[in-house]
Amino acid sequence: MSPDIETLIQKISRLPGLGPRSARRIVIHMIKNREQIMEPMLMSLDNVLKNVKVCPLCSNIDTFSDVCSICSDLRRRRNLVCVVESVADLWALERTSCFSGLYHVLKGLLSSIDGRGPEFLMLENLQQRCKENSVEEMIIALSATVEGQTTLHYIKNFFKDQNIKITSLARGIPMGGELDYLDNGTLLAAFSARG
Amino acid sequence: MSPDIETLIQKISRLPGLGPRSARRIVIHMIKNREQIMEPMLMSLDNVLKNVKVCPLCSNIDTFSDVCSICSDLRRRRNLVCVVESVADLWALERTSCFSGLYHVLKGLLSSIDGRGPEFLMLENLQQRCKENSVEEMIIALSATVEGQTTLHYIKNFFKDQNIKITSLARGIPMGGELDYLDNGTLLAAFSARG
Repeated sequence: MSPDIETLIQKISRLPGLGPRSARRIVIHMIKNREQIMEPMLMSLDNVLKNVKVCPLCSNIDTFSDVCSICSDLRRRRNLVCVVESVADLWALERTSCFSGLYHVLKGLLSSIDGRGPEFLMLENLQQRCKENSVEEMIIALSATVEGQTTLHYIKNFFKDQNIKITSLARGIPMGGELDYLDNGTLLAAFSARG
Repeated sequence: MSPDIETLIQKISRLPGLGPRSARRIVIHMIKNREQIMEPMLMSLDNVLKNVKVCPLCSNIDTFSDVCSICSDLRRRRNLVCVVESVADLWALERTSCFSGLYHVLKGLLSSIDGRGPEFLMLENLQQRCKENSVEEMIIALSATVEGQTTLHYIKNFFKDQNIKITSLARGIPMGGELDYLDNGTLLAAFSARG
């Protein structure tokens, strides 16, 4: 195998969710479809590399000059902020179109195992923005995992004296969920929060 | 989401084995690791795009000037040819280092459903090479699927009057295979070909 192809397969196989076998399949597919797939892919990758930056306000990734398209959108409410773990979660919320405020993207959740301390949350930065925009509600939209909930409590505690209403995502039965198949924790949460 | 990122996600999600969710994960991972992953990936993709070609003799993909590194390797036996379905299969055989001859890579297997006729096998091309190299043995290394076996029989029939020994891969129990878990066809083949 040519070293160029080997290098490309190696690089692709290290992407999340892929391995050597899927990387080989992808590379062969791209080489076979040079004009339709490989060249556009190269251009697209180059565009993203050249144009995409991290927003200095909310840490969203986007193409922009000063701040990202969400932070610069004047129709969005400035006094509402939503804390998410990652840009993937920001995109997931944006797909639902349920939120019209601004975001604060963490660099990761608190995790003693992975050595992520409070500096990954950039809460001073968030506090500063809350003051400037007179934020009234902060929605902490984190995963219902141990790390997510630890981080939730840490942020709640950090902002406890700041006169900001702090909310988090509701717990309950997911759409289409059948009672018999739910875990105890979910069922308990759904039962306690009945209404 | 920025249109540049959206385009890239769309293109990646169309690669074999990937979907929108894994494509989003990959793009975020690349953007987060700009210097370590995204830039080297772009360079590597560009190298392959610039340098990799399809070998005019065996249809292998490689970096070369006239013919691929296998066809131009003088240590390989010219009177032995192995027919494979795709470059992935060629790579799989090369990893075992069991074969020291040249290859003939098909453009696909015969398939009436997918509309692939004998022109995908390029057998005139192969016949020409067999004459030039006075090929003594042709190993037809195709998958044990209906399409693979149909193609095997077609090729065997095509070369039946040419005084070339035509062989195909042995059938039997795969390494580590337990009798009780094998399908009937495999067990039957292993039993008939016992030795």
